[in-house]
Amino acid sequence: MAPILLNCLGTEHSEYIEQEQYVKNPHLDSMEEDILYHFNLGTKTHNLPAMFGDIKFVCVGGSANRMRTFAQFIHQELELPGNVDDIRDICEETDRYSMYKVGPVLSISHGMGVPSISIMLHELIKLLYHARCRDVVLFRIGTSGGIGLAPGTVVITDKAVDSFFRPQFEQVVLGKVIIRSTELDEEVARELLQCSAELSGFPTVIGNTMCTHDFYEGQGRLDGALCSFSTEEKLEYLRKAHEAGVRNIEMESTVFAAMCRVCNLKAAVICVTLLNRFEGDQISTPHDVLVEYQSRPQCLVAHFIKKHLGLIA
Amino acid sequence: MAPILLNCLGTEHSEYIEQEQYVKNPHLDSMEEDILYHFNLGTKTHNLPAMFGDIKFVCVGGSANRMRTFAQFIHQELELPGNVDDIRDICEETDRYSMYKVGPVLSISHGMGVPSISIMLHELIKLLYHARCRDVVLFRIGTSGGIGLAPGTVVITDKAVDSFFRPQFEQVVLGKVIIRSTELDEEVARELLQCSAELSGFPTVIGNTMCTHDFYEGQGRLDGALCSFSTEEKLEYLRKAHEAGVRNIEMESTVFAAMCRVCNLKAAVICVTLLNRFEGDQISTPHDVLVEYQSRPQCLVAHFIKKHLGLIA
Repeated sequence: MAPILLNCLGTEHSEYIEQEQYVKNPHLDSMEEDILYHFNLGTKTHNLPAMFGDIKFVCVGGSANRMRTFAQFIHQELELPGNVDDIRDICEETDRYSMYKVGPVLSISHGMGVPSISIMLHELIKLLYHARCRDVVLFRIGTSGGIGLAPGTVVITDKAVDSFFRPQFEQVVLGKVIIRSTELDEEVARELLQCSAELSGFPTVIGNTMCTHDFYEGQGRLDGALCSFSTEEKLEYLRKAHEAGVRNIEMESTVFAAMCRVCNLKAAVICVTLLNRFEGDQISTPHDVLVEYQSRPQCLVAHFIKKHLGLIA
Repeated sequence: MAPILLNCLGTEHSEYIEQEQYVKNPHLDSMEEDILYHFNLGTKTHNLPAMFGDIKFVCVGGSANRMRTFAQFIHQELELPGNVDDIRDICEETDRYSMYKVGPVLSISHGMGVPSISIMLHELIKLLYHARCRDVVLFRIGTSGGIGLAPGTVVITDKAVDSFFRPQFEQVVLGKVIIRSTELDEEVARELLQCSAELSGFPTVIGNTMCTHDFYEGQGRLDGALCSFSTEEKLEYLRKAHEAGVRNIEMESTVFAAMCRVCNLKAAVICVTLLNRFEGDQISTPHDVLVEYQSRPQCLVAHFIKKHLGLIA
């Protein structure tokens, strides 16, 4: 629970006092209206507390289709009433993100890369604030390239690290570089590993996750439109990453970890590896196998949620 | 026309010799198959020269809906046979990007931010290479925040600059920072300005475009989940940007300019401004006005294409 200064709050917001303060922006309370532009939602046009006030778990991932699938899956897992086909995209008026609400679970797509997920996180965190949500846990479920792991292995992130293996995220604010920690919630990570042991359907490890800003050159791939290095130089970089504890590579974890940490949100990153980068660069695994791999982080998170809701012992 | 070393080319690719070489990767020609994973296309599964060999203009933009609209618009403008409703998404099997082909024009969405567009550009440039395209011009049409301009003004980018107003793009390759120039094609920019004069429907300027990696803190907005600066500090940063020739802010131009330049592709960035950032941060313009604004870069590019195809004098 973050300490909140009473004199920062207008009278309208006095009911917020007992609440965790997710946003860190003194300007927000003086705004007459807040338009969450990329969600096509707003504080004047939508009753955000009524729509979202009961949210306890938020699950985010790159692909809109995958996040719809997750919403339908969690609907079945929680045995909620109604038809899964009726779950509608709350952001259907915009094509920037897709958002689905299923009981206390929100499922949102974030596109690819740090800037894309950061826009979504700003608006999501403001949404949770305006809706007066409490005790929310965030999960990023994604796909990744593995380092020294069999394809299909799930990696629960210990530390999210940058391309230089540092557990930090650099944010440029008004032309100055600000450095933020990318530590994630250790307890949630341990609980997720325990969930994997209980499910015993696929291999799961805890390891560091490297977040890059490019899929080809930035991840040492030899198959981009541009490549200026040799196979040996690529493998040397991946070996160094492995020595630094990196077990997988994706493109969103550092800013996700950094923003959740600053905003007092418990968070975890759970990505399945689609290939072992020591073996190659191209993703040539058959479609049905990829679909099964992508369901693995979803199964872990569903199990976690069911345990927290008391649906399983 | 870039010089091509004969000894870099396998016998299979000898017909490429007369062609502009868009890719800069000596590994590509030794690959048996190239899977363009995020397009769901590949050299073994698709006849790329037959599908794409006649492409002369590629238009990219963030939103999938907008790029479908552009494809339908250009279909009408070029007076092509067939129904606009039959134009199908070539990448419909994946939700990462949308792609539409209309005669010699390819329209592709790229999502938001540098990493998202960079994945698309790698695969697009390889696509143009595999399809043996020549003399291709690329356009990014987008939305942006304006600096000191009336909303609805179109900015044709002179130089794409970073958050420090430098005309460069930093790419991390195997843990080392590589700096690339972000200069765009001056002739194409001038021609586009001339198109605007001929259309005379909306104000258009040539100016520098700042590319940031964050929409809120990174662009000096006061309305994000996080904000640690004052209104005065924000305005001071925007004034400095204006003094450096920056007329609008978006999130993809530097990597777009840098990759096109390295790959010998003529390129231009044309973005409409949705608001004047000296006046505010929130995008509260009515939906129908925004839709009209967003059509402006499309009109400019359509006019350019029609002139180049000899459809208008």
